[in-house]
Amino acid sequence: FEPTVLVHGGAGNIADAKVPFAKLGVKHAARRGYEALQQTGSVLDAVEQAVNALEEDGNFNAGYGAVLNWDGDVEMDAAIMHGGNLSAGCVSLARDIVHPISLDRCIMETTRHQYIAGEGAMHIAQQQGFDILSKGALVTEAAKKSLADFKASLNGSRADMLYGSPGTVGAVALDACGNVAAATSTGGITGKLPGRIGDSPLLGAGTYADNETGAVSATGHGETIMRFNVVSRMLALVQHGNCSMQQAAQQVLQQMSARFEQTAGIIGIDHFGQLGIYFTSKRMSWAYQRGEELHFGVDKDEDEVEIVGEPRVANN
Amino acid sequence: FEPTVLVHGGAGNIADAKVPFAKLGVKHAARRGYEALQQTGSVLDAVEQAVNALEEDGNFNAGYGAVLNWDGDVEMDAAIMHGGNLSAGCVSLARDIVHPISLDRCIMETTRHQYIAGEGAMHIAQQQGFDILSKGALVTEAAKKSLADFKASLNGSRADMLYGSPGTVGAVALDACGNVAAATSTGGITGKLPGRIGDSPLLGAGTYADNETGAVSATGHGETIMRFNVVSRMLALVQHGNCSMQQAAQQVLQQMSARFEQTAGIIGIDHFGQLGIYFTSKRMSWAYQRGEELHFGVDKDEDEVEIVGEPRVANN
Repeated sequence: FEPTVLVHGGAGNIADAKVPFAKLGVKHAARRGYEALQQTGSVLDAVEQAVNALEEDGNFNAGYGAVLNWDGDVEMDAAIMHGGNLSAGCVSLARDIVHPISLDRCIMETTRHQYIAGEGAMHIAQQQGFDILSKGALVTEAAKKSLADFKASLNGSRADMLYGSPGTVGAVALDACGNVAAATSTGGITGKLPGRIGDSPLLGAGTYADNETGAVSATGHGETIMRFNVVSRMLALVQHGNCSMQQAAQQVLQQMSARFEQTAGIIGIDHFGQLGIYFTSKRMSWAYQRGEELHFGVDKDEDEVEIVGEPRVANN
Repeated sequence: FEPTVLVHGGAGNIADAKVPFAKLGVKHAARRGYEALQQTGSVLDAVEQAVNALEEDGNFNAGYGAVLNWDGDVEMDAAIMHGGNLSAGCVSLARDIVHPISLDRCIMETTRHQYIAGEGAMHIAQQQGFDILSKGALVTEAAKKSLADFKASLNGSRADMLYGSPGTVGAVALDACGNVAAATSTGGITGKLPGRIGDSPLLGAGTYADNETGAVSATGHGETIMRFNVVSRMLALVQHGNCSMQQAAQQVLQQMSARFEQTAGIIGIDHFGQLGIYFTSKRMSWAYQRGEELHFGVDKDEDEVEIVGEPRVANN
């Protein structure tokens, strides 16, 4: 097994002007995740660090830069899962923290539960020493403009604006022993009703990892991904349908888009290291590092490659 | 297709003294759901009415009689789903209403979302005219005792008490056209941390319905059902593994219990009307009505039958 970290920065109509920033962001995240994997050997560290990088980047809809709900507030969903023992942590309605994916990991490691939402989740964040920001600290000007545009569009016919700009982020990783992990973090959709939960924090809908099949993170229209149970359907095709991760992603997303007229994107890795990268949206930003190769793309059939040094391992 | 409504009242160690009440409750619920199906022809009405009956019954862990979280409060999860168009409604952290499953249906029918939690969900309940009870109105003496026992047990070794008494409720239904629906409603587990979400409201974990495969509702240890994605794994076996609903339930729950040492129960119906009723726990209360036959049971291999009249259809 060749250690690999693959990330996405959201499926949707990424504006031309934002493409360079999206590429920079996913490339940085893949490298940071890969470096963590080299240093600690942990696929959980790899996906957590990769997602942390994107949560810190205001160009993505997660952590700082998350989209706003109808009331103008940030409410975030996230999930992390290890494919070896199927341990997982999930959070919804998280606010005022940059790294919901790290709160997931805290819930996984310090409670007898997997999924905690709202005030209960914030209580754990406080107890575990998370930096609780002042209200509004995660809100960007771009997120405010997106909400204003959304509200204006409700009187018009700009249906393409209905779900705001893309940018849910996610990561999957494989280590040298065949362990996989997955993580997804998001602010949801612009103008959502307070309390709305999407697919990202739901195991089997937007996020799942199982060493017997692989690890997957989804992005796109959350309600549709949830009701079609996209990630579970994909992994069922890998397990029972003799499909590769790439074939499974294509089949399920094409079925979904044909049936519901909504688009989505997928990244996946199976326990042999075979990748699945597919989207029915116009664009999806993604990148992966494997050894010295850093691959990335945004448009269909785009696969750019850069050779990067293997990260220096600490104390080596 | 022969119209059928199948319900469960929770898997677990149902005490001997509670067995008669459990049987009465599930029988009543199956009849109420079947009557709704006969009257309106809607599988959604059928599962909603069946679950409503159990939410009103203090002997089950849903609505009135729901178990208490660590702080002594009721926080409820529920999901409803139609297998025809995969429309769904899900709620978490609902409080002070008797019928979270009806709030699900409201979310499904009146919002552009599927899953809403906490204050946002309560806001919709208020807007839609739900009867908002005073704080504590759902709390039974039995639920208080269960929480006190749970807290006392933390210093002892009564591991069997760790997750309180059973009683998550659910229903699946099939109409004459081959439509299926599923619904699950629960108070979760005794002594849970505030904000904890279980498997019941998560499509593919505790609840799912798809006319192409069938409808399923799960009950048991929520964290384990969620991480093992029990309902999705079952439906994958039905779709790809040439399994009947019963075979799929057995296979997945046996795998789950072997791997995680936790128990669960399942009810399912496929689009031909074949039933799956299976549990790895000591007991699970269940009942179904099909035509004039009302079947029910609590112990393994128990299948009692009563002949009941077909319900009188209104205006007929």
